[in-house]
Amino acid sequence: MSKILLQALGGHPTPRRPVWIMRQAGRYLPEYRELRGKATFEELAGNAELAAEVTLQPLRRFPLDAAIVFADLMSPVGALGIPVRFDPGPVLERPVRDAASIRALPEAAPEAIAPEVMETLRRVKRELAPGVTLLGFGGAPWTLAAYLVEGQGKSGFPRLRALMHGDPALFQELLGKVSRLVTAYLLEQHRAGADAVQVFDSWAGLLSAADWTAHVRPHLATMLEELGRAGVPRLLFAHEAPHLTPGYAALPAEGLALCWRSDLAEVRRSVGPARALQGNLDPAVLLAGPAATRRATQELLRRVPARGHVVNLGHGILPETPLESVQALLDVVHEEKIAS
Amino acid sequence: MSKILLQALGGHPTPRRPVWIMRQAGRYLPEYRELRGKATFEELAGNAELAAEVTLQPLRRFPLDAAIVFADLMSPVGALGIPVRFDPGPVLERPVRDAASIRALPEAAPEAIAPEVMETLRRVKRELAPGVTLLGFGGAPWTLAAYLVEGQGKSGFPRLRALMHGDPALFQELLGKVSRLVTAYLLEQHRAGADAVQVFDSWAGLLSAADWTAHVRPHLATMLEELGRAGVPRLLFAHEAPHLTPGYAALPAEGLALCWRSDLAEVRRSVGPARALQGNLDPAVLLAGPAATRRATQELLRRVPARGHVVNLGHGILPETPLESVQALLDVVHEEKIAS
Repeated sequence: MSKILLQALGGHPTPRRPVWIMRQAGRYLPEYRELRGKATFEELAGNAELAAEVTLQPLRRFPLDAAIVFADLMSPVGALGIPVRFDPGPVLERPVRDAASIRALPEAAPEAIAPEVMETLRRVKRELAPGVTLLGFGGAPWTLAAYLVEGQGKSGFPRLRALMHGDPALFQELLGKVSRLVTAYLLEQHRAGADAVQVFDSWAGLLSAADWTAHVRPHLATMLEELGRAGVPRLLFAHEAPHLTPGYAALPAEGLALCWRSDLAEVRRSVGPARALQGNLDPAVLLAGPAATRRATQELLRRVPARGHVVNLGHGILPETPLESVQALLDVVHEEKIAS
Repeated sequence: MSKILLQALGGHPTPRRPVWIMRQAGRYLPEYRELRGKATFEELAGNAELAAEVTLQPLRRFPLDAAIVFADLMSPVGALGIPVRFDPGPVLERPVRDAASIRALPEAAPEAIAPEVMETLRRVKRELAPGVTLLGFGGAPWTLAAYLVEGQGKSGFPRLRALMHGDPALFQELLGKVSRLVTAYLLEQHRAGADAVQVFDSWAGLLSAADWTAHVRPHLATMLEELGRAGVPRLLFAHEAPHLTPGYAALPAEGLALCWRSDLAEVRRSVGPARALQGNLDPAVLLAGPAATRRATQELLRRVPARGHVVNLGHGILPETPLESVQALLDVVHEEKIAS
C-alpha cells in the first residue's frame, strides 16, 4: 500500500485527497490529556517511548494519512548549549541577542541534535501502517530565532525585529547559524525514518515583504535547497503571512501549507498545478461542531481542485475541539468521489 | 494657526507632513510611568482630570500634531452593563457568546456611554495649542466583539471565529449592536471636542478576505458612513491585515492607517491620491535606537509622497522605546523640505 500523502507531494494522482491535522497529537484527545496528567510536556517530548506513544495516539482513533513526530519546536536548541524550560511556552534563561552570545553559538554535530527525536521516529516507524506517511518537522530559521532573541513567545517579537533593523549583519549571522542547525536536524530526521518534513514558519508574517525578502528568504531558500538535494520531500508552512504567499510559493518545496486567511483556490490558480497545497480549514470551525465542520470541509473540497491538495487545518487543532468535529472532517474527505 | 493633520485628512497641501504616534501617551514616557506608580490604568482612564493630564504629557515633551484621548478600547462597554476589569488586559467576568446574552445587550443611550471620556476630551480641548488636532478613538465592531466573545485577549480569538462560523446570523446581531454602540460613542466624542476620530481594527487580520467581506465589512461600512454624514473626519486603522488592504481602502474614511507590514508607497499607487495614508514605521525600529530610527524615517519619507501622508508608527510605541528615538523620528519629519 503506497503512501498517498507522499504521492500527492510527488505530483502524482491519488485515489482520494490525503488528510492529516496539525497538532493532531495533542490536548483535544482524552488519551493525550491522560498522559499529560502523569507527565509534563517536556517529559513526554524528551522520552522516546512516551513521545512515540503520543505520536501514534491520533492514528489509533482516526484514519489519518500522516503521523507527525511529537517533539517541540525548540528540541534542536539544546544542541547549541542553550537550556530551555517550559512555562508553558518555551523560556530561555539567557536570550541570544548581542554579538558575543550570537558568535558564541556552536555549530552542533548532527548526531548531537535532539537524539530523542530520532529515537522517537525510529520507534514510530516500526509501528506505523505502511500507507501512513511519517513526517518530521522543524522551525524555520526566522521562527526559531524569534524565541532565541526574545527569550520567550511575545506578541510581535519586538526585540527580534529590533535586532534585524538595528544590526542587519549580526542578524544574518544568527539566522545562518540557526538555519544550519535546523537543516542538519531535518536531515537527521529523514535518516531516522521521516518520509518527509514540514518546516514551520509560525512567525513568518511579522515582516513586510521587502524585509522578509532581504533578511529571511535567503536562509530559508538555502535550507530548503539542501533538503531537496538530499531527496527529502518538503512541506513549507507559512502562518499568518498571506501577504508573503508569492514569496513562499517561489521557494523550493514540494508542498506549500497556508493558514486559513488564504484562499487556497486562488493560490492554486496563481501557483499553477505543479505544487501541492496543504490546508486550510479554520480550526475554529471545528469548535463550532460537526455540522459546521462538515459544511466548511465540503466547501473547501468544492473550491480547491483535488489534484495536489493535502487536506489539513490552517493552524494547529484547538484543545477544546470536539472529537465529533474531527470525525466529520475525515468523513467528508473519505466520502469524496474523485474523478480520475 | 490651522491644524495640519486635519488639512491632510481634508486632502489639502500642508507645509510639512503631520506626525503623531500611536500610544504616544504611554509607558515609554517617564512622567507616565510616574503617574502609573500611583494609580492603576483603570484609575487613570476613569478619572477625567488624570486622563487629560496623561493625554497632554507627550505634547509637552514633543512637537506632535495630534493628541489622542487617553481611554481604553473597552471604555464604551460599560454602557452595555458589562463589567470589565484589567489583568493587565481587559477581562470580562461574563463573556457574551450565546443567543441569550447577545440578545440581552441593551441599546445604550448616547449620553450614558463613557461620560468620563467626554469630560477628558473637553478638558484637553481647553489646554491644547490651536495647531494640534484632538483625536477621539474607538474599536471597530469586530475588534470590540473579539473581547466580548472571548472574554479577554487571546491569540487568534478562536471563540469569536467559532461563533461567526457556527451561527452567522447571531454573530450579525452582535456586530450590529456593537457597531451602533461605537458609532454613538464616536459621535459623542466629536460633540465633546474631538476634531477627528480613529477607528482601531486591531484584530482585523484574523479572517480571510471572503469571511471579512461577508461578516465584518458591512458593519464597518455602516458605522463609517454614519460618521461621515455627521461630518466627522475618519481615520481607519487596520492592524496585521495586509491581505485585506484592498477591502479597507474601499471603505469610506478620510485616512487609512496601516501597520508596518504594508508597503505604504505601493498602497499609495494602488489607492490613488484621494485618500490620506497614515503610518507606518515598525515600532521595533525605535527600540534599535535613534540612528536606526533616523535611517528608517528618511527611507519612509523618500518612498511615500508627502501629499496626504500622516507620519506615524505601524502600531503602538513600545514601552521600552528610548525617548531619543522619538526625537529622531520627529526631527526627520520637521527637517524635511516639501516642494510645494
